[in-house]
Amino acid sequence: MHKQISSTQNPFIKQLFTLKEKSRNRKKDGKFLIEGAREIALAIQGNYEIDSLLFQPELFPEHQLEGLNTSCSKLFEVSKEVYQKLAHRETTEGVIALVNSKGHTLEALRFKNENPLILVAEAPEKPGNIGALLRTADAANLDAVIIANPKTDLYNPNIIRSSVGCVFTNQIAIGETSDIIRFLHQKGINIYCAALTAASNYHTQDYKQATAIVVGTEATGLNDEWLENSTQNIIIPMQGEIDSMNVSVAAAIIIFEAKRQRDFNQFN
Amino acid sequence: MHKQISSTQNPFIKQLFTLKEKSRNRKKDGKFLIEGAREIALAIQGNYEIDSLLFQPELFPEHQLEGLNTSCSKLFEVSKEVYQKLAHRETTEGVIALVNSKGHTLEALRFKNENPLILVAEAPEKPGNIGALLRTADAANLDAVIIANPKTDLYNPNIIRSSVGCVFTNQIAIGETSDIIRFLHQKGINIYCAALTAASNYHTQDYKQATAIVVGTEATGLNDEWLENSTQNIIIPMQGEIDSMNVSVAAAIIIFEAKRQRDFNQFN
Repeated sequence: MHKQISSTQNPFIKQLFTLKEKSRNRKKDGKFLIEGAREIALAIQGNYEIDSLLFQPELFPEHQLEGLNTSCSKLFEVSKEVYQKLAHRETTEGVIALVNSKGHTLEALRFKNENPLILVAEAPEKPGNIGALLRTADAANLDAVIIANPKTDLYNPNIIRSSVGCVFTNQIAIGETSDIIRFLHQKGINIYCAALTAASNYHTQDYKQATAIVVGTEATGLNDEWLENSTQNIIIPMQGEIDSMNVSVAAAIIIFEAKRQRDFNQFN
Repeated sequence: MHKQISSTQNPFIKQLFTLKEKSRNRKKDGKFLIEGAREIALAIQGNYEIDSLLFQPELFPEHQLEGLNTSCSKLFEVSKEVYQKLAHRETTEGVIALVNSKGHTLEALRFKNENPLILVAEAPEKPGNIGALLRTADAANLDAVIIANPKTDLYNPNIIRSSVGCVFTNQIAIGETSDIIRFLHQKGINIYCAALTAASNYHTQDYKQATAIVVGTEATGLNDEWLENSTQNIIIPMQGEIDSMNVSVAAAIIIFEAKRQRDFNQFN
């Protein structure tokens, strides 16, 4: 059994709309929206708790809800008008979940062995770049992604979308730079900071021990706090006319060099 | 001395507007527009011929034209209204060049030695992906980028923009798949096709000889014509939940593995 909502003026729908639009409301309520069956399934698989499910029956027949494999019992059949108001994409998935946020503390990170491979991104700004980093982290099966001082919250619809759901498949922590550096030092994890100058070529380093690869923004790189606390600052040799590289491309090159050194052994 | 144009109804301005908007017109006229001093300078450096320069004096004072280091003598001072009509970006560079297209034939490619490292992209669709591929190709100082059956022309404003001008710094050829394969075979260049299945791990191959790395679209990968004519089909091991990777990220990982094997020697 489920309720039906046809008016965009319904207070619950209005609340959901603010969660879609405003980072502040997502933080305050500790909830966010996920659109699309594939992304919702990945969130469930990643142990996110589904509060409610909304479906538009012409786009997403009720029986398909079973495929999502969730015990969530708060189901809402919504009108096309309501769906359009809440949907972020132009494509018409027909199903939206209201989901409880996770904490993403450093303390909650769990590694499967003593030699984790971690990506740290300092102050990433563009949702598209964060999404691309999370896709690469998923492909490499990294042990964790740590985001320092993010400029946008993790549940921004554009991050969910550009990560194709990898925001739910990665183990993610968020923190301030100094706390992250302390955490990495305490755990004995080597810190390799991607720098723009005065650094060793990335491919000359050994990433087989516990390793954090740290990347900054394209414009400014990493600040001194990182560069002074690193095991080694590293650089990708730039041999062209343009002296810059997309941050997600640079991160992928270094991450996969580490994977190559580890012979793509997931338990190494 | 220069002419002044203040009306968006001026026939020359109307012609330039169609070059900005329509791939068909760019092809017919053999000309295209470049916006921004940096991109124009890169095109001049890449031996593109500048037909005319338009500047909006409040944004780009005339004396700055000297910095572009071009012998182009067709200068037009345009009104803000005219500039806005021709400008693609929201940022206000204040200078636009009308530029002659190049041929981009396979025959025109020149390699600096017997062991070139080349990227081939089959039917890339999104301008942003093409731009990202060209940025990586520039950073790696690849000998050439070959584009098979592009879905958009190279001088699309979004490609120029997302490549941050690397569309002018790379040696680029465009052709049909069968012609490209014949060209690579004739030159004795090994073909490594990034495949989605039934392939060797990319890091087990030797890229120190003449090498073409071939990537397809994210959705469909490469067609059989490529896969059956390759020296070796290669794959990046995917160890996460999501079984796909952004094409420009995948290309960068393989290109920089080749660079690593060549020890980043530009003449190797």
